[in-house]
Amino acid sequence: MNVTIRGRPQAVRTVAFDASKNSVRLIEQRLLPHEFKIIGTKNFRETAGAIRDMIVRGAGAIGATAAYGLAQGALAFRGNDLKRFSAHVETVQRTLADARPTAVDPVNAMNDVRREMARGETVAEQQSLALAAAEQFANEDVRHCGEIGRHGAKLIRNGMKILTHCNAGWLAFVDIGSATAPLYAAQAAGKKFHVFCDETRPRSQGATLTAWELAQQKISHQIIADNAAGHLMQRGEIDLVIVGSDRVLGRTGEVANKIGTYTKAVLAARHKIPFYVAIPLSTIDWNLKRGFDIPIEERHESEVLGAWGVTGNQREAGSWKPGKRAYVRVANPTSGARNPGFDVTPAELITGIITPAGIFKPADLWKNRWRLGKPSAVVV
Amino acid sequence: MNVTIRGRPQAVRTVAFDASKNSVRLIEQRLLPHEFKIIGTKNFRETAGAIRDMIVRGAGAIGATAAYGLAQGALAFRGNDLKRFSAHVETVQRTLADARPTAVDPVNAMNDVRREMARGETVAEQQSLALAAAEQFANEDVRHCGEIGRHGAKLIRNGMKILTHCNAGWLAFVDIGSATAPLYAAQAAGKKFHVFCDETRPRSQGATLTAWELAQQKISHQIIADNAAGHLMQRGEIDLVIVGSDRVLGRTGEVANKIGTYTKAVLAARHKIPFYVAIPLSTIDWNLKRGFDIPIEERHESEVLGAWGVTGNQREAGSWKPGKRAYVRVANPTSGARNPGFDVTPAELITGIITPAGIFKPADLWKNRWRLGKPSAVVV
Repeated sequence: MNVTIRGRPQAVRTVAFDASKNSVRLIEQRLLPHEFKIIGTKNFRETAGAIRDMIVRGAGAIGATAAYGLAQGALAFRGNDLKRFSAHVETVQRTLADARPTAVDPVNAMNDVRREMARGETVAEQQSLALAAAEQFANEDVRHCGEIGRHGAKLIRNGMKILTHCNAGWLAFVDIGSATAPLYAAQAAGKKFHVFCDETRPRSQGATLTAWELAQQKISHQIIADNAAGHLMQRGEIDLVIVGSDRVLGRTGEVANKIGTYTKAVLAARHKIPFYVAIPLSTIDWNLKRGFDIPIEERHESEVLGAWGVTGNQREAGSWKPGKRAYVRVANPTSGARNPGFDVTPAELITGIITPAGIFKPADLWKNRWRLGKPSAVVV
Repeated sequence: MNVTIRGRPQAVRTVAFDASKNSVRLIEQRLLPHEFKIIGTKNFRETAGAIRDMIVRGAGAIGATAAYGLAQGALAFRGNDLKRFSAHVETVQRTLADARPTAVDPVNAMNDVRREMARGETVAEQQSLALAAAEQFANEDVRHCGEIGRHGAKLIRNGMKILTHCNAGWLAFVDIGSATAPLYAAQAAGKKFHVFCDETRPRSQGATLTAWELAQQKISHQIIADNAAGHLMQRGEIDLVIVGSDRVLGRTGEVANKIGTYTKAVLAARHKIPFYVAIPLSTIDWNLKRGFDIPIEERHESEVLGAWGVTGNQREAGSWKPGKRAYVRVANPTSGARNPGFDVTPAELITGIITPAGIFKPADLWKNRWRLGKPSAVVV
């Protein structure tokens, strides 16, 4: 998407590859929204570190980062001994996979790259195939997000007010994003609308990442406290909700996503406001039988007990002069916190799942499973 | 309630009067939860300033502060010219009322004091009656909160997990509080239970004030992000919700309270969890005909765009060493915010209203209006 750097809009991907330097180029997301910086990793170990240390986050984005990291590691190999090359590539793949052990996207992305590499007969051929496969993985991610946008944009009419939660934007993918894709496509089609970004405590990805993205693309938006959506719905100020997801159960249509998503779905249902979930096909879990079994990560209590930001005077938006990055403890210092990171929304509260293959009722995912790319290896 | 000062528990009221110094003693609430300090105002102008600058907040607390401030101003008068005394008292009353023009409690409290004063025939008599009336107002507030506790404690059973939102605690009254009163009464009766404090963004009164209160009283509790209650309810981890209110409509049973209250009521109804609102009788508005007409204050966007806290290292609860008080901008600096401060919950979502006169269904307030102290002056 476009990012305005020193007054000039430039097209930037969240993840890209610089072949001349054998370097993976990443937006340093930990500095956003207060600073925009692209970093280049020197080698595959630095790329693994970037995944581990959350310089890059989001399913599609870390998948592409791992794919590029594998190519980067392969390209760094000197010599033409295929056996030694294979052993080296194994090490690279393991290092990258270990950087975020719970995520499935890096594993799948690197398996794709390895499958392509196997077609080469020399080290040089395999190196070249690795890079081509990584580029293809990234381009597919962009194409899929584009398709989500094409389908989802049909839901957006002029003058609508749209709520989103957390960040399922282009920063979480290679480009375009999932929940944001319909917004960008509708904007490109000339539609005018307004977006409310849920702050998304405790990590505030809505107030930081989504708001930053929308500001860069000049989409009309405002941040709201997570507490405010119910009131706005009651007063008729929200027409549509679109969120992303970390895992959609293909068998039941249940949706796991950032904590607070379930609450918004309950509110939307009460107010008869359409509630959509936008995902690439890789987010569908065809195995798990019930949402209750999705493990809910309990995160560190310091996230709830305080907030990260930049110091400075309390000012109007726009006139803010950033100071130093700092964590402040907001809560009573002798109190603890519970901090579940995700919740599960039942299918009955979801109007539709927006995928690259079209929009489906959650209950219809299973009967459309072959269209939706269910891997045949999975035993039904 | 008890506050532990240098290791020793001491009984403290939120608002009190020091007759020897003709001074209103207040907890400096802006420093909580990071510092506990009691300040004494030198004169009625300082007392008005304490209301205006939010050193003291909460309906019952500012009512008592205004009553004491009026007595303080009256007692400072030297001489025995009744006419000049009356003019002086007028100035005092106007100054205190202007400190928080939208609030009704200071006005009612000071009218009570003036009515009592009118029984005196000399300046000295009126001065003495003013202080007695102010003390009586404060003691009535404590007694009413005690009655709320007595009725509400019956709802609390051993092992319950109770959710509360914002701060309707003793810091918002002279003592005991409204939503917290049943907790304190149940604790005094030997019941064991656990409280989840909603953080209550954007001003975080749950994480700061309510958590601080419960920690002082050694009530088991944890802070949660406002986003987390839905998930906890879904998993059966919340048995009861008790909140306070800024205004309850006597005609409809609708409840205006801190933004996010409506959301919690919707969630509680979905999960069939009892949802109670605890209030003194002065919170009932017998005039307004529908909740939609309650004016919803739109507050400054900087509250949503950042957070106040103390700097320091990000640590576990308990090991926190506070640094400097600071505001950090969390959100994207080029984005704005919407910030409605309150919302309105319809009667159908409320299990009961806990009052000093007992617990009532919201729809039954009107038919019990004479028991609930409806002023006869109001034309029905």
